[in-house]
Amino acid sequence: MDRNAPVGVFDSGVGGLTVAREIIRQIPEERIIYFGDTARLPYGSKSRDTIIRYSRQIIRFLRTKEVKAIVIACNTASSYALDAVQAETDIPVIGVINAGARTAVQATRNRKIGVIGTEGTIGSGIYTEVMQQMRPDIEVFGKPCPLFVPLVEEGLLHDSVTDEIASRYLSSLKGKYIDTLVLGCTHYPLLRSTLQRLLGEGVTLVNPAYETALELRDLLKRQHLDREGDAFPEEEKYQFFVSDLADKFTSFATAILPGQVKETRKINIEEY
Amino acid sequence: MDRNAPVGVFDSGVGGLTVAREIIRQIPEERIIYFGDTARLPYGSKSRDTIIRYSRQIIRFLRTKEVKAIVIACNTASSYALDAVQAETDIPVIGVINAGARTAVQATRNRKIGVIGTEGTIGSGIYTEVMQQMRPDIEVFGKPCPLFVPLVEEGLLHDSVTDEIASRYLSSLKGKYIDTLVLGCTHYPLLRSTLQRLLGEGVTLVNPAYETALELRDLLKRQHLDREGDAFPEEEKYQFFVSDLADKFTSFATAILPGQVKETRKINIEEY
Repeated sequence: MDRNAPVGVFDSGVGGLTVAREIIRQIPEERIIYFGDTARLPYGSKSRDTIIRYSRQIIRFLRTKEVKAIVIACNTASSYALDAVQAETDIPVIGVINAGARTAVQATRNRKIGVIGTEGTIGSGIYTEVMQQMRPDIEVFGKPCPLFVPLVEEGLLHDSVTDEIASRYLSSLKGKYIDTLVLGCTHYPLLRSTLQRLLGEGVTLVNPAYETALELRDLLKRQHLDREGDAFPEEEKYQFFVSDLADKFTSFATAILPGQVKETRKINIEEY
Repeated sequence: MDRNAPVGVFDSGVGGLTVAREIIRQIPEERIIYFGDTARLPYGSKSRDTIIRYSRQIIRFLRTKEVKAIVIACNTASSYALDAVQAETDIPVIGVINAGARTAVQATRNRKIGVIGTEGTIGSGIYTEVMQQMRPDIEVFGKPCPLFVPLVEEGLLHDSVTDEIASRYLSSLKGKYIDTLVLGCTHYPLLRSTLQRLLGEGVTLVNPAYETALELRDLLKRQHLDREGDAFPEEEKYQFFVSDLADKFTSFATAILPGQVKETRKINIEEY
């Protein structure tokens, strides 16, 4: 395996860019091939079988780019597809669940942790399973928040409607006296200030994107896959592919990532 | 062409069931093959190219069921794909735009018509184009309402949040003094009472589903494609196919359609 090869990162759309941003910050020497499945998003309301099939197609596409490792930067795809694709792929594949779960387990004082995410992620029960394996005496309370993604995509980050919806979603978690909340969907960190205000300063918010970047860094080092080559031409270092609406993606990526994103290429993912 | 063959009806998901319901009411003797593209919904935020490709795959699938005519029961797919697929298909294909546009043009008194729909439908400008061809002195005001579909799918049909969002979306249309509003997305009739209350009784709401069923009835009669055979076994008369989450679709269909929907079959639409 070529340790100077790029890392593949994928998501249903733009949400995974928050993970790519953390990778760029934590391991700036690494190259990234990013894929966003904008022709078939969202993933959060679809079935396990469908998400596994989509993830397999995307991994086949990323492997044509000779990536050395893959990050599933989507909580729903990590919940449903990680085990299946790890078993059949001979390069390292990591998701966003483990890193977020570990941080939450370390952060809690009263052993009551809340998790918010899509219907797929919460319905899978994966965060509960992983956290209770790490520490069996922990109580985990999941709450699906299906309106958060459309509200974020409408730009209503600081808005009375978002406050009202968030307050309804969080009320059952507040009743459980959680002291830690996992933001189990890559869009949710954009609502961080609203969520923190509603829950109060006593509750720690955990963003799995940051921890996942650290996990990737350690993994690459441990497997001697960390980049050591010459500097790579800056304009080819980060490459972006989507299944639809490339220009819209480019604007969004430029807003989220440091530096200008010049180009996003559209591919037909159904061919992989 | 076998005049006793079924009619094909498709949508990105469950919304087109409001059109199927009107067909069942208006021409109860006809058989229906329904397809909902639940693995790739929603269509409203995706590109023209992608929606045309998806529509072609669905039409290839419906033709394996030997349908005699096809109804595109989705405003976005009607906007983007109708012309393309009509040109390459040798059976009649109709969308939901024409019938809704004609009714609105007939209903208006002050020649100011509003249209609400997805970003795709409104961005295409199709309602404006079609209505101004019918009557050039008409003014058409479009407004995309991207949060309505997620709010309906969350069941918030009568809710203060939906009132607030609807009131924001409608405010620009109220400022134009429209007297007619086209509900240009198959989900929106479920918000009819909220919209009517906010706009007042002076504004006529037009639901294209009803008019589309009448257009289909006339078309079948004109082309001698209307059913005249013996009664068909009731349990096979209406058949439902989706690309994901068949059971969830069955529950939704049972709630919308008259009579029990026993079964929905899942297919891999990417193979067509």
